[in-house]
Amino acid sequence: MRIDGREYNQIRPVTITMDYIKHAEGSVLIEMGDTKVICTATVEEKVPPFMRGQGCGWVTAEYSMLPRATETRNARESSRGKISGRTQEIQRLIGRALRSVVDLEALGERTIWLDCDVIQADGGTRTASITGAYVAMVSAMDKLVEKQLIPKLPVTDFLAAVSVGIVEEKVHLDLCYVEDSQAKVDMNIVMTGKGKYVEVQGTGEESPFSPEELQELLAYGKKGVTDLIAVQKEVLGELGNRIGGRDEETVENA
Amino acid sequence: MRIDGREYNQIRPVTITMDYIKHAEGSVLIEMGDTKVICTATVEEKVPPFMRGQGCGWVTAEYSMLPRATETRNARESSRGKISGRTQEIQRLIGRALRSVVDLEALGERTIWLDCDVIQADGGTRTASITGAYVAMVSAMDKLVEKQLIPKLPVTDFLAAVSVGIVEEKVHLDLCYVEDSQAKVDMNIVMTGKGKYVEVQGTGEESPFSPEELQELLAYGKKGVTDLIAVQKEVLGELGNRIGGRDEETVENA
Amino acid sequence: MRIDGREYNQIRPVTITMDYIKHAEGSVLIEMGDTKVICTATVEEKVPPFMRGQGCGWVTAEYSMLPRATETRNARESSRGKISGRTQEIQRLIGRALRSVVDLEALGERTIWLDCDVIQADGGTRTASITGAYVAMVSAMDKLVEKQLIPKLPVTDFLAAVSVGIVEEKVHLDLCYVEDSQAKVDMNIVMTGKGKYVEVQGTGEESPFSPEELQELLAYGKKGVTDLIAVQKEVLGELGNRIGGRDEETVENA
Amino acid sequence: MRIDGREYNQIRPVTITMDYIKHAEGSVLIEMGDTKVICTATVEEKVPPFMRGQGCGWVTAEYSMLPRATETRNARESSRGKISGRTQEIQRLIGRALRSVVDLEALGERTIWLDCDVIQADGGTRTASITGAYVAMVSAMDKLVEKQLIPKLPVTDFLAAVSVGIVEEKVHLDLCYVEDSQAKVDMNIVMTGKGKYVEVQGTGEESPFSPEELQELLAYGKKGVTDLIAVQKEVLGELGNRIGGRDEETVENA
Amino acid sequence: MRIDGREYNQIRPVTITMDYIKHAEGSVLIEMGDTKVICTATVEEKVPPFMRGQGCGWVTAEYSMLPRATETRNARESSRGKISGRTQEIQRLIGRALRSVVDLEALGERTIWLDCDVIQADGGTRTASITGAYVAMVSAMDKLVEKQLIPKLPVTDFLAAVSVGIVEEKVHLDLCYVEDSQAKVDMNIVMTGKGKYVEVQGTGEESPFSPEELQELLAYGKKGVTDLIAVQKEVLGELGNRIGGRDEETVENA
Amino acid sequence: MRIDGREYNQIRPVTITMDYIKHAEGSVLIEMGDTKVICTATVEEKVPPFMRGQGCGWVTAEYSMLPRATETRNARESSRGKISGRTQEIQRLIGRALRSVVDLEALGERTIWLDCDVIQADGGTRTASITGAYVAMVSAMDKLVEKQLIPKLPVTDFLAAVSVGIVEEKVHLDLCYVEDSQAKVDMNIVMTGKGKYVEVQGTGEESPFSPEELQELLAYGKKGVTDLIAVQKEVLGELGNRIGGRDEETVENA
Repeated sequence: MRIDGREYNQIRPVTITMDYIKHAEGSVLIEMGDTKVICTATVEEKVPPFMRGQGCGWVTAEYSMLPRATETRNARESSRGKISGRTQEIQRLIGRALRSVVDLEALGERTIWLDCDVIQADGGTRTASITGAYVAMVSAMDKLVEKQLIPKLPVTDFLAAVSVGIVEEKVHLDLCYVEDSQAKVDMNIVMTGKGKYVEVQGTGEESPFSPEELQELLAYGKKGVTDLIAVQKEVLGELGNRIGGRDEETVENA
Repeated sequence: MRIDGREYNQIRPVTITMDYIKHAEGSVLIEMGDTKVICTATVEEKVPPFMRGQGCGWVTAEYSMLPRATETRNARESSRGKISGRTQEIQRLIGRALRSVVDLEALGERTIWLDCDVIQADGGTRTASITGAYVAMVSAMDKLVEKQLIPKLPVTDFLAAVSVGIVEEKVHLDLCYVEDSQAKVDMNIVMTGKGKYVEVQGTGEESPFSPEELQELLAYGKKGVTDLIAVQKEVLGELGNRIGGRDEETVENA
Repeated sequence: MRIDGREYNQIRPVTITMDYIKHAEGSVLIEMGDTKVICTATVEEKVPPFMRGQGCGWVTAEYSMLPRATETRNARESSRGKISGRTQEIQRLIGRALRSVVDLEALGERTIWLDCDVIQADGGTRTASITGAYVAMVSAMDKLVEKQLIPKLPVTDFLAAVSVGIVEEKVHLDLCYVEDSQAKVDMNIVMTGKGKYVEVQGTGEESPFSPEELQELLAYGKKGVTDLIAVQKEVLGELGNRIGGRDEETVENA
Repeated sequence: MRIDGREYNQIRPVTITMDYIKHAEGSVLIEMGDTKVICTATVEEKVPPFMRGQGCGWVTAEYSMLPRATETRNARESSRGKISGRTQEIQRLIGRALRSVVDLEALGERTIWLDCDVIQADGGTRTASITGAYVAMVSAMDKLVEKQLIPKLPVTDFLAAVSVGIVEEKVHLDLCYVEDSQAKVDMNIVMTGKGKYVEVQGTGEESPFSPEELQELLAYGKKGVTDLIAVQKEVLGELGNRIGGRDEETVENA
Repeated sequence: MRIDGREYNQIRPVTITMDYIKHAEGSVLIEMGDTKVICTATVEEKVPPFMRGQGCGWVTAEYSMLPRATETRNARESSRGKISGRTQEIQRLIGRALRSVVDLEALGERTIWLDCDVIQADGGTRTASITGAYVAMVSAMDKLVEKQLIPKLPVTDFLAAVSVGIVEEKVHLDLCYVEDSQAKVDMNIVMTGKGKYVEVQGTGEESPFSPEELQELLAYGKKGVTDLIAVQKEVLGELGNRIGGRDEETVENA
Repeated sequence: MRIDGREYNQIRPVTITMDYIKHAEGSVLIEMGDTKVICTATVEEKVPPFMRGQGCGWVTAEYSMLPRATETRNARESSRGKISGRTQEIQRLIGRALRSVVDLEALGERTIWLDCDVIQADGGTRTASITGAYVAMVSAMDKLVEKQLIPKLPVTDFLAAVSVGIVEEKVHLDLCYVEDSQAKVDMNIVMTGKGKYVEVQGTGEESPFSPEELQELLAYGKKGVTDLIAVQKEVLGELGNRIGGRDEETVENA
């Protein structure tokens, strides 16, 4: 049995509260168990220098933790004067993942900034950030549709992310912090609503893993993403029906 | 009439939610109208180098805004690689203000870190941070008493802060963002429960102010602090009774 | 009696030497007792990005101390790679104070840089910087009038600053370093020639102060500013007669 | 056919020159096609602060490119004053990968620094760095054995890395730069001599990939790692025989 | 006798390998004894801001060492976040030296970047960088001639550099690291093919040197530069014949 | 004739005012024509890490210019967040030069910090800094003798520095800014009282110089240093008699 009584292939209770921050074009508070992340989406009417003049938009992300989101206090990256390698890896991952389901040409020359700020951490903050930022992004893009700046949502599919790992020789889905700190193998999986992989990142630093274990990790990940996308659909309601791949074959009935 | 229907000498609705972040020794979410700040208090069992070996504790603060706490997105200070002058001024102010009501010797050689993170801004973020951080600090110190690390709360008095200003020739208490952006004079007042000044910071950059205006600003400030300390007392409950100056003459009946 | 034999409401001997640095458009060496600050004013024919295209000028300040201006050597901020919170607070204060008496529209789209470099420190360096920078600024603006770039001095009033504080229960005017280091309350007051407040910044970190003490501090501050403006008038001579408020009610005969 | 005439599941010609830099305890020049990386291993007789007093060693890596390793010149990270997210990701990956086959306890409280400097880049620089750094590390550890500081090589297995990707709907092994820039899916695989995964990092930013494609990518990766470990064995000669898993089941005959 | 058996006025064996890095417009590997430097020349079709619009080109240099180029590992300047004073001095020297033999007007508004990366150090890295970068630069400029962007090589003379020093009271030419670390006087000399001085930098920190010693140092330096230019001519072949001063009086027959 | 009427081999009027800054152990204002530098010497009772435990002292220098020391305002290095290559070169030069005449062993494990702050610049600021810092250093060391921390001045010789250059084909001694900006060759010479070279740094970036020109530059430099040491002796008075080499052969009567 897991420490919080869950099944090995069960995710934690998930809540996504939309329009959490009044100023942002899109915003959610996502809670996955005790992990809580504020995700805001900001629309900026220009693109970064390397994208200019190509008629395409851009989606980028920033990730941070409040100093006391964790068990012990972490010094702020602004005080230390530089962003850690871990933070950079995570924000690059979030941006890449979200871009995979956006039709950047349809978005037009504008940038969507996704800010994921962890206010309380209990494992899986990067995957919760992706799952929450997706909803905030769709919500902000809907504002663009409402203002008739773009004709329809430039989103091709649903997208969610989850962690899987091996703790004491058993594959676990959606690890909380205590499980994560004991895991020998740690993997993050980002998938679309149609069941395609966007990112597969598995690390067996302390203990390399076998091909069989890899297959089991992938299966658990698919289960978790499917459950999370169900929550996204509920929260997005009608908005979800306007997402690219909705009418086509999707992960849950694949 | 003010834009939100308040009297000129009336503060906005205030809510202080205690124990908002599970990992921190003390934490609150303070909401003053639409301004929302998460304040956490962390106990560290050492003091900064310049305080070592003196048998005294230290209280210090850090302040930050989420990028989208404001109407338009602000770049993170961690991305820009340095902390702005405004942020530094604010965190120095918060630390100084809180130390004024702490018996540092009684605290012992430990540091209380106060992290004030604005998740939504609508004027008065620095004063809300002080008012909220005070409650988080008292709560964290109570943990030290519970663990018998110190015999009693090393806090000498209540403490709260409020902004006042002159908008269109009229003094206003507790300015929201729209008022603040039109104010010709801007003042922050930090006072103790016994009605003493800890900080008086008034600026008339666009329009110097007369001695008579200064007196009226001070009077409004006292009204605001008194109202805020009443809220703190309610939230702290029994804990408030153990604060230094409770039984003596306090601001509301001075 | 004070350590240097002054009355409690008496400022130190003040000398302002004009045209101290040959390259600058305006420059002074201001000496207030043993505090010595070189203030230069530089005219730059453009404004910072956030001011462009508005037809208005800008006044900004930078403040620094030579490493050995103080009793013990301070590491240079250039070597440490960042500007301290204290320095930022001071340079923001100086800039704000000076702008309060400048008609930025009449100045036109140009910037006045005020550099205040403390070569020897004995308390009151930020207030001496304001008092000295005012003279350097007026002198630089006079060059613009001479070159017929602007029709008249865009200065609306005189401006000076002084410190006051409470040492051993007594209010003191213009504290030297030894007094300052023993002060329980520390206040800086910036006032105009017409007796209006531009900045009031009082801090009672070690000991909050009563409303009565606040009033006495304000009275001493007014006395000090009046005396300093008298020195500025003497040094500026005919130039002083061309400053905005000269013919109207001024502080000394209010 | 591929642009350089290779089969889809064929790696480029590989050369590993040992003892390339005279001062380093271990060093190689690894050439994979036109990608050339100098890998040095330095032994430092202490561990980083977070590892002290645990009786364990540490392995860490740094990665850099000469400015003109690439088609167009890249500004140095030392000139820009910070390390890019990409560089940080890569050096974290290299360190993690190498640690997975080191018995840190047997290494003792010392650090192996692996410096991977790309002098010419043509795709696959991070995987070439891992494959080359492995040989440099083993060589440096052998010096410790020679000096009798440790009784035997604290290395549990062989280790190599290779890139795979999907270009124009076909899976390719060991992509050169031109192929890499056209790839829709990009994956790096790090495996041990016994055929276990240490890292699996696949990204389908421009085009999510199906479960079937994932399986094919994994199979090509295994082929590439097996070929590279054969080269490492040849280069290491007798030294290779003393590596942990040599006598047990290894990848090539799994 | 010297530790490597050389005469006091003899340089170490020198090898210059042209076209060492395939992407660069010009590149060499220069080996002077055990000192090995990769020098690349990059052509950029613009000049730095301070040179724009003057119709002139620019030549600038960057210098770095791989961490393990030296006996003990040096932390990377990118990790430390700033470039050391030593590095800055060296790259300024290299840039200045190279510009002295370039007709910047004839070069046109473009920049030649010279990157000198020391892969193995054994004394004299800055002088080897100058000698090698000269060849890389000429080679890159020849590409511009080939593309008919400029009519002829905009190079007025040959240029090389060498170190001289006083070790145990004797003047030595081209010091290796062991000699350099024992030298009381250290001098770098940069000269043109026509025997003119471009840089003379002598330092007697531990022991000031007499006018007579200075003359002997200068004579040895001339000998060394003459020998190095002979190597450059051999390597450049026909290209060398097209350099400005070739037909006129040159250093070897002065 | 030179623009200020001097002979080609004549230095500008020099004034050295001792004890210019009250807090420093040694301090001077040196004026060479319109170049004015405040030099302070600070004694610190420890040495930098790389010198610890060797029983030797250290002498180090920092150099800076006030922003408006020059014709146009220079941004502060503290604002730009890094020290320029030029500044680093100069402060390394000053430190090296001063150390050449100090018996570091006799100084004991303490550091002398020399701060050279240019308040007005008109050419030759680095050489004026050396000449002035020498006097400040001797003055600070005398305080150590007075306090009986060391038995005698640990200074082996006098030391001064001067610039020479070639302007319009003529060698000039001690160039002012206008001359310096027209010079084709620029050289700084640091010499001891006994006529030995400590530093010879000549640069002919725009025009390499002949061996004959080098000899003439050296002769002018010796003349300048001799004149400056005469001024130092006058200013130091009796203190000068206690400097190492005073009784031996000195430059002026060599």
